[in-house]
Amino acid sequence: MSGRNLPIDARRLWDDVMELAAVTEPGRPYTRSAFTPRFLEGRAFLAHKFAAAGLQVRIDAGGNLIGRRPGRSPAKGVICIGSHSDTVPGGGRFDGAAGVIAALEVARALAERGHQLEHDLEVIDCLAEEANVYGVSCIGSRAMAGRLTPEMLAYTEPGGESVARAITRVGGDPDRIAEARRGDVAAFLELHIEQGRVLESENLDIGIVRAIVGILRIALTIEGRADHAGATPMDLRSDALCGAAEAILAVRAHAAMTAMEPTGYFAATIGVIEVAPNAANVVPASARLVIDARAERRETMQRFALWVEQDLPRVVAGAGARLERIVVLSDSPHADANAGLCEVVAEAARSLGFSSREMTSGAGHDAAMFSRIAPMAMIFTPCRDGRSHCAEEWVEPEQLAAGAAVLHEAVLRIDRSTKTS
Amino acid sequence: MSGRNLPIDARRLWDDVMELAAVTEPGRPYTRSAFTPRFLEGRAFLAHKFAAAGLQVRIDAGGNLIGRRPGRSPAKGVICIGSHSDTVPGGGRFDGAAGVIAALEVARALAERGHQLEHDLEVIDCLAEEANVYGVSCIGSRAMAGRLTPEMLAYTEPGGESVARAITRVGGDPDRIAEARRGDVAAFLELHIEQGRVLESENLDIGIVRAIVGILRIALTIEGRADHAGATPMDLRSDALCGAAEAILAVRAHAAMTAMEPTGYFAATIGVIEVAPNAANVVPASARLVIDARAERRETMQRFALWVEQDLPRVVAGAGARLERIVVLSDSPHADANAGLCEVVAEAARSLGFSSREMTSGAGHDAAMFSRIAPMAMIFTPCRDGRSHCAEEWVEPEQLAAGAAVLHEAVLRIDRSTKTS
Repeated sequence: MSGRNLPIDARRLWDDVMELAAVTEPGRPYTRSAFTPRFLEGRAFLAHKFAAAGLQVRIDAGGNLIGRRPGRSPAKGVICIGSHSDTVPGGGRFDGAAGVIAALEVARALAERGHQLEHDLEVIDCLAEEANVYGVSCIGSRAMAGRLTPEMLAYTEPGGESVARAITRVGGDPDRIAEARRGDVAAFLELHIEQGRVLESENLDIGIVRAIVGILRIALTIEGRADHAGATPMDLRSDALCGAAEAILAVRAHAAMTAMEPTGYFAATIGVIEVAPNAANVVPASARLVIDARAERRETMQRFALWVEQDLPRVVAGAGARLERIVVLSDSPHADANAGLCEVVAEAARSLGFSSREMTSGAGHDAAMFSRIAPMAMIFTPCRDGRSHCAEEWVEPEQLAAGAAVLHEAVLRIDRSTKTS
Repeated sequence: MSGRNLPIDARRLWDDVMELAAVTEPGRPYTRSAFTPRFLEGRAFLAHKFAAAGLQVRIDAGGNLIGRRPGRSPAKGVICIGSHSDTVPGGGRFDGAAGVIAALEVARALAERGHQLEHDLEVIDCLAEEANVYGVSCIGSRAMAGRLTPEMLAYTEPGGESVARAITRVGGDPDRIAEARRGDVAAFLELHIEQGRVLESENLDIGIVRAIVGILRIALTIEGRADHAGATPMDLRSDALCGAAEAILAVRAHAAMTAMEPTGYFAATIGVIEVAPNAANVVPASARLVIDARAERRETMQRFALWVEQDLPRVVAGAGARLERIVVLSDSPHADANAGLCEVVAEAARSLGFSSREMTSGAGHDAAMFSRIAPMAMIFTPCRDGRSHCAEEWVEPEQLAAGAAVLHEAVLRIDRSTKTS
């Protein structure tokens, strides 16, 4: 693959990703949390690179960093490409950043060839995609989708700074947040690492995201009775942790079965457990579990939620405990990619000789917000061992280059086509 | 029962228990942690009451508060009765304190009748029975059993005070700790609330403890792999929490079966679980469980430990995770009561018209330490709903009086008998 004559500069792409990655909290690579000094330093680097690529650089009311390359027929709308440059604390070098720099590289490749598009092209670094201390993710893309509410703008981080104030600090204008809303996007494409092992295990170059899952978070509270672990015979107990264990295994079995059905991607995880009093010599009195369920289709998610409500109480009761409360913590809808746009990406990959498959993104992305206002598609690159949100996150330089080349080719094809309008 | 003509003053007994209970950290009833100002206040109350009952009051080198009533034939040895006055944080009014005050009441009843025993009688408030911030429990009874080691004396609480220094502060003398060791105890009797629901569920007055369980604590570390909860399909996961759930249910099933076998009392509890990273959107990478196993017989415990080592790894592996480490945190041996002394207690109960049964104590007690140096037996009273180590801990006044009356009668019978020498 490395010998191929790609339409983008693989070396420059890689070097820029590494240079941006070096902008990190020194004690905790790789950390560039939104709104922090490091984040602003990373943005200054990007703004400089955008300008050097001949892009018209601005920050919109939602705090998004945007580099524009005007096209011949602005009335056709804007082709937007990009991702986000913020990271989780102790995150990786590629999640988000790779998508922003790949988009920049596409603009540079067009500029170098003097290739003028019909459409305007925008390279976008969306503000604050990751979960953060302010309590709202995808801040910039939410604003562009018209879904950053006054309530969200009023959220504060523990130090007391509001989202609105933080947006102002990075150059946005929360008082005019409505102006960030986009009605002119012809298509949005985002390159991202897969964050899973599907492409790697199937030895494929490119994933074409047909949908981004909806995410349902449900908290379960299971009640037993605190009893002395020594003085209470086994048959006189109501052990909340045993009830929780039955629930954990039932959710896993049910999710594995649902995932095998032909009803779209599904996964469910219990990643959080808290037991009280959590003492070695006391039979657990209560347990709190958080279920994270992800479904490509709404009906699949609804069936799962119904199962939790109707069947799980019996499972827990079977262990002698009680499923006391089921609380929905959050419920984000799934987002479908545009079928035509997916086909364009697939053709782009094929034309360059890259293998690909359609897949579902189990993680959330800025692209999900864009899907509310424009045709959207995503390009996944493989990543080593599926690792993400950690320092070990890795994609091979040639894998990243392949993704950027497909992004470049897809932009050219969208620009020529009318399919997506 | 309340109408019976008991050899002790039920009202005085109850009032003193309530008066001692009132000595508590005001914000967190009922808290009288060993070595704290409240503990010393409680001890001052007890010392005053001991003296008022005509007892010779002293504090031994191990910090135990002792009230002595000399007998006619000191060479016969000392009949020791008592328990402990310290509590866990947020504990109850009866665990420990009821046994100390019942012993005091026995001494008072003897004094009032002018009944002189053959044996010396000692009422003992053993120092620091409960688990505490110093990291060693049963400090006073350990010293009397000659098992408070120099290492234990050097343990420190988080503030830096050593056990030795703390013992000095309550009036003991750690430099002469060997002098606390007793070789003169003819018999030790301890009254305590059951801390379980066996007596209550069988509607019995008195439990006669034939053995105090051994306690084995084992930490299990289960390893999986941290993966993105959205991007990792169900069949590509290694979920440490699912492995833990299988282990929890297997331990419970195995313990329930073992408890039904005719090999003595057995119980096992997993009361502690810690999962990393414990985040909703990450498949759990590791889980730590603590098993608390209690067995009346050594062989039963050994069989359980062997099962954990040999069978549990397969159980965890069956869930796609790995049982990485099995660490024994502590292993306290069981303690048998003296059969002759148990018979004396049973006869004492019978003679007073109280129903009783032999049983195993699933909790540890000072009596276990005494069993290393003297014949020992314990008298359990019922307690409401088995609650203990909490503010709801409760025994009815007449149930407590019954226990104290049996203690009184048992002391008289031991004094007359030679069985236990």
